[in-house]
Amino acid sequence: MNRGPVITSRQNSLVKLVRGLGSRRAREAEGVFVIEGHKIVNEALSSGVSPEKIIVSQHALEQRAVTELVNRPDLHSEVIVVSNDIMEYMSETETPPGLIGLAGMPEAGLASLAALQTGLRALLVIIDGVQDPGNVGTIIRAADAFGADAVVTTGGCVDIYNGKVLRATMGSVFHLPVVRDAEPGELLVLLKERGITVAATSPGDNAISLPEARLAWPLAVVFGSEARGVAPEFCEAADILVKIPMPGRAESLNVAVAAGITLYEACCRRGSM
Amino acid sequence: MNRGPVITSRQNSLVKLVRGLGSRRAREAEGVFVIEGHKIVNEALSSGVSPEKIIVSQHALEQRAVTELVNRPDLHSEVIVVSNDIMEYMSETETPPGLIGLAGMPEAGLASLAALQTGLRALLVIIDGVQDPGNVGTIIRAADAFGADAVVTTGGCVDIYNGKVLRATMGSVFHLPVVRDAEPGELLVLLKERGITVAATSPGDNAISLPEARLAWPLAVVFGSEARGVAPEFCEAADILVKIPMPGRAESLNVAVAAGITLYEACCRRGSM
Repeated sequence: MNRGPVITSRQNSLVKLVRGLGSRRAREAEGVFVIEGHKIVNEALSSGVSPEKIIVSQHALEQRAVTELVNRPDLHSEVIVVSNDIMEYMSETETPPGLIGLAGMPEAGLASLAALQTGLRALLVIIDGVQDPGNVGTIIRAADAFGADAVVTTGGCVDIYNGKVLRATMGSVFHLPVVRDAEPGELLVLLKERGITVAATSPGDNAISLPEARLAWPLAVVFGSEARGVAPEFCEAADILVKIPMPGRAESLNVAVAAGITLYEACCRRGSM
Repeated sequence: MNRGPVITSRQNSLVKLVRGLGSRRAREAEGVFVIEGHKIVNEALSSGVSPEKIIVSQHALEQRAVTELVNRPDLHSEVIVVSNDIMEYMSETETPPGLIGLAGMPEAGLASLAALQTGLRALLVIIDGVQDPGNVGTIIRAADAFGADAVVTTGGCVDIYNGKVLRATMGSVFHLPVVRDAEPGELLVLLKERGITVAATSPGDNAISLPEARLAWPLAVVFGSEARGVAPEFCEAADILVKIPMPGRAESLNVAVAAGITLYEACCRRGSM
């Protein structure tokens, strides 16, 4: 662990950089994103993602979990110590965990998905136009829990490197490939070429009730925003439209809850659990 | 619709009251809570909950949905107009919907649950010690979607009259009884007396995988916080412990997602959908 002098100034270029990374434009320009807290940084390291820099507050250095992290033998990051004030200034959260990692952002687009091997039991999760960061992160977490091979977000979604998305994933963002900003037309061509069944969730009368739906594998399931639903081009290209039966009074479910239920049902049928 | 002069001062007693109602203590002291936006106020009215007061901004009065609401024949609330600045000052949200309702808070505790008729197909949802307002609201919404007869929160939960909880329920909080601050021991006595099966969700080895669990009816399902799980007294008193099988890498699901899956599975088995 290499340490320079403790950073105490808001004018420091690294401090300014981290503050700026709350905006998507800055993240795209710099090619890096922020992960906060030792748990998610440990998840990143264990998943083979090595942050370029680790920034710790003087307070945090007194915590055992933090010292263990900065002394991990597989940590090749530059470690930088800042005053507690500066950590608070940089942090996006109300109770800063005292440790920040700066990690390089993979390329956006479908190239990484095209490189993915998709077997007969492959499961892809497509998030279309969902703006709420907590929901997008929670869907990524559920996709990871149910063993999805990849998650794909379309351009209308919140950026997955938004801090709220990352926190809601609870580290799952490092467990599986997450393709961002996919163009729906290109994505559909790729899915058809691979022989992947496309199931879109839709509240419409032409959708089949989930418990009765026959979901063929390999499978891609598309979830849309609560306000607008799945984009028409996905619905038109889908092999099957499914909906969750709701005997009660609520008109709809939260999109992350709907995604969890659909993935659970799909995995139960696949016999993978 | 009765209207007095437009309120323009932050010193106005009603304005001060609404600002204060962001705190639970003030809500309990005043016995009222705030609902924001014409959609949720319409849901309240349609569910027989009549707000004592409706506060609208001058801007909002130009919206058709708002004028329709304040002219509803079943609206018996006092309607008060405030300046746009004052509405922004009072609102909890970044983009204030321009309409606020003040509604009376029902009594806390188990009395309302004791009065509830619970038939052979009754479904109760118990939320134990969940602090995140978005998750509590989303579970109430899912409980409503799957036709639960009531939701019960324990003292360790965030207050259901917190604005973030109410927004996440999307109006479902008015569709079914929500008992708050239940004492677990008293609640368990009531459930046993009624012959209601208690199922608790638990990640432990002694829990039965949800697709294989036999859930007897009438049924109460208990969900706990992601950090601490369901309280030991619920687990010890439960007739069955269930867990959601997760073939992937994530250690756990978001609690609202887990609740949605469990309620979906329970309702599918009950044959109610």
